Amino acid sequence: MTAHSILERIAAIVGPQGLLTDPRDLEPYVVDWRGIYRGASPAVVRPASTAEVAAVVTLCAGSGTPIVPQGGNTGMCGAAVPHAGGNEIVLSLARMNRVIELDALNNTMTVEAGCVLANIQQAAAEADRLFPLSLGAEGSCQIGGNLSTNAGGVNVLRYGNTRDLVLGLEVVLPDGRIWNGLRSLRKDNTGYDLKHLFIGAEGTLGVITAAVLKLYPRPVTTATTWTAVPHPQAALEFLALLRGHCGDRVAAFELVSRNCLDLVLRHIPGTRDPLAQPHDWYVLADLSDSRAGAALRRELELALEAAMHDTLVSDAVIAENDAQSRALWRLRETIPEAARSEAGMLYRHDIAVAVSRIPEFIREAHTALRNRFSGVDIICFGHLGDGNLHYNAFLPGRSRSDPAARDAHDVTAVVYDIVQRYQGSFSAEHGIGLAKLGDMARYKSQVEMALMYTLKRALDPRGIMNPGKVLRQVMGDG
Amino acid sequence: MTAHSILERIAAIVGPQGLLTDPRDLEPYVVDWRGIYRGASPAVVRPASTAEVAAVVTLCAGSGTPIVPQGGNTGMCGAAVPHAGGNEIVLSLARMNRVIELDALNNTMTVEAGCVLANIQQAAAEADRLFPLSLGAEGSCQIGGNLSTNAGGVNVLRYGNTRDLVLGLEVVLPDGRIWNGLRSLRKDNTGYDLKHLFIGAEGTLGVITAAVLKLYPRPVTTATTWTAVPHPQAALEFLALLRGHCGDRVAAFELVSRNCLDLVLRHIPGTRDPLAQPHDWYVLADLSDSRAGAALRRELELALEAAMHDTLVSDAVIAENDAQSRALWRLRETIPEAARSEAGMLYRHDIAVAVSRIPEFIREAHTALRNRFSGVDIICFGHLGDGNLHYNAFLPGRSRSDPAARDAHDVTAVVYDIVQRYQGSFSAEHGIGLAKLGDMARYKSQVEMALMYTLKRALDPRGIMNPGKVLRQVMGDG
Repeated sequence: MTAHSILERIAAIVGPQGLLTDPRDLEPYVVDWRGIYRGASPAVVRPASTAEVAAVVTLCAGSGTPIVPQGGNTGMCGAAVPHAGGNEIVLSLARMNRVIELDALNNTMTVEAGCVLANIQQAAAEADRLFPLSLGAEGSCQIGGNLSTNAGGVNVLRYGNTRDLVLGLEVVLPDGRIWNGLRSLRKDNTGYDLKHLFIGAEGTLGVITAAVLKLYPRPVTTATTWTAVPHPQAALEFLALLRGHCGDRVAAFELVSRNCLDLVLRHIPGTRDPLAQPHDWYVLADLSDSRAGAALRRELELALEAAMHDTLVSDAVIAENDAQSRALWRLRETIPEAARSEAGMLYRHDIAVAVSRIPEFIREAHTALRNRFSGVDIICFGHLGDGNLHYNAFLPGRSRSDPAARDAHDVTAVVYDIVQRYQGSFSAEHGIGLAKLGDMARYKSQVEMALMYTLKRALDPRGIMNPGKVLRQVMGDG
Repeated sequence: MTAHSILERIAAIVGPQGLLTDPRDLEPYVVDWRGIYRGASPAVVRPASTAEVAAVVTLCAGSGTPIVPQGGNTGMCGAAVPHAGGNEIVLSLARMNRVIELDALNNTMTVEAGCVLANIQQAAAEADRLFPLSLGAEGSCQIGGNLSTNAGGVNVLRYGNTRDLVLGLEVVLPDGRIWNGLRSLRKDNTGYDLKHLFIGAEGTLGVITAAVLKLYPRPVTTATTWTAVPHPQAALEFLALLRGHCGDRVAAFELVSRNCLDLVLRHIPGTRDPLAQPHDWYVLADLSDSRAGAALRRELELALEAAMHDTLVSDAVIAENDAQSRALWRLRETIPEAARSEAGMLYRHDIAVAVSRIPEFIREAHTALRNRFSGVDIICFGHLGDGNLHYNAFLPGRSRSDPAARDAHDVTAVVYDIVQRYQGSFSAEHGIGLAKLGDMARYKSQVEMALMYTLKRALDPRGIMNPGKVLRQVMGDG
């Protein structure tokens, strides 16, 4: 079958609305939003239903045509972008954007893969429920992409990763069969758990077309505090104290270093230091509860008093209202933007270690980088409560074209080698895609890699599903 | 290799302490605790380390000797008992019972598979933490078995199933390789999630040898209420109201029908009806919190007042102290024992449907059974908050030897067929084992069964790991 005749047959399945082939139309689909990964594709297919997805995949399986599933194309690792070879079609789920059902008494919501995350949050809120997944790209990312990358975000401490928010899935398998696992059950021990195979697989084992998501009681009160802590170990012990006092009401617990705050104050208009004196480290924490009233704030005050008594916290403010809370969160959320405003090279690392080992990791990695790269600045912030740091090394004055930029691999290797000794993760939230294939080979055990290849070969023997992402291309890949 | 020479080689690996071959020693390992499933085995192997497990499995893989992994042998479906053929060795993890590490600041605990659940709970409590898994067999079941069956229990509403309490696993694969996935990370998006494959697989894909478990802040206050509700729909709306008021502090929410309470009052010494008047349905609910003081009880009182105002609750008591709380829980926990004391046949069904559809399901199943089986009594109780009912049909006066007992399949088919129409589960907590192989074939879709067989063949091509459990024996099975 020629490429042309395949496109004709796809057009017959999805109709003229469902197929883009004009290069101008393809542009937003063949490059990631940061412009780092650029590929080529003969066509973008935009099916309107699971049956259409299944028919397209069946056709591609028969002809050996590789498929790159794509959601909102907001990923960080290039998983949703085709390779440059030009033979992979992009399968966009964007037209499948219906909320199929919301069952408030079951605390579930059934959605198609192309639903934008913010719309899902909104639909949940209208039913007086919370869908807790929340991240920077929520206005444009799609739930199918969130599922395929097991997205993290700011509410993981309390509610878990995307994986933990799913009860059921519908998946079109690499041979075009539909697996209907759209169950909305809290308990079901009938055989192997298939959904967790597809969640986080970045589209390499099938196309997620719909999901049953968990909803939660909607918090009605929030208390936000910005606290100064003398060092990361104090932050860690403050977290334990806060959870001891407030249990699951601790919804977020973010660590911010002084130089991150300095970057924000320098580059982001309208920001100011919430505290009178500078401090080396800060914690931004949110409590939330479904009970109205002043009890939550009082609880936070008591915990802060105890933490100050134990010299874990040296100064603190509590937001008096939503506007103040948003202003405190803005100090945390604009760090990446502020860092991009500095002249120099930023080497980013989305790493995780055991929460208890964060202070030790920070000390060891700082020392190793400073010994090796003179002038390096560490931009360290992130989700301390999850053991997940955005541990970024900044080399001022350098640019990508600079010969010294070839240090990139070396900088990252210093960080990841330490992460490895801590039995940590070199990709806590962002996945593998194309960006971290080399790290998979370097840091994963042979047994673990072999198991993953075994699964890939068993489920996608022709290798047509997003080939060369997560795992390097295997025999049979297009 | 002869069976004899295999046992000799196993003895060389595990030593004399590690191998039982005397039939009297084998007895507790070849029959389940209820005496329903009886098999035969040439030997019980009791390794003392993961390396020994790996060496034994490697040997068995080479000789095609089937292996039945066994924990505390407290399962309900026969998964841990060998077949009658007598060629399967039992691999007991009982000697691997060390707590390897407890990291309070990371809220994790690393344990060997043979640890008894109650010992794990105890170790967590000593570190001022909670390991929330709790179930009837906790004094003798082992965590490896809990993991392999994805055990449920009474705290699922708040903390999830066993699957949700795991960060990392170590598994000896069917060819004897060791997969070390003992990571204690809250976030790790580096390739396929392998642990969820082995959790709930009932030992058919490998032998779980160790795990990293999640710990939680230890609740210090509990409030227990026994409430009368007019009907299951009111119970459901009371649950929504309670979670709306108290959020995640709702730790358990159990539904009990009047005839369950009658059974308990009739057969269990020292029990009494907590309320002055009889009612058709009851809810037993627990709130818990990490904050000391009277706030939790006050919160429960306010929620009960609101529920009474809405006529969701017609009467209620709140336990004044731990002894009263235990007495209320005893009314729920002794229902199975009380039911066994009646003369007649009890057909048990561990089912789940969407929480919101429980009332409808109860109505429809009651009607269908009563129309078909005259004199049937419905013993209905369970974890309403999880959509999981122990929905048992009782036929008074019948016995197993009675010709009418051949109705067993018919009774169950009536219940499961309705469960199926509700897209529910025919095994919410207890798994498949041997007991529900026929139901797998009857109620699972062809695509889902094919996916499971694909995984089984890919990971255990020789078919030596617990053959014929979860899935019927596949080609290559011993």
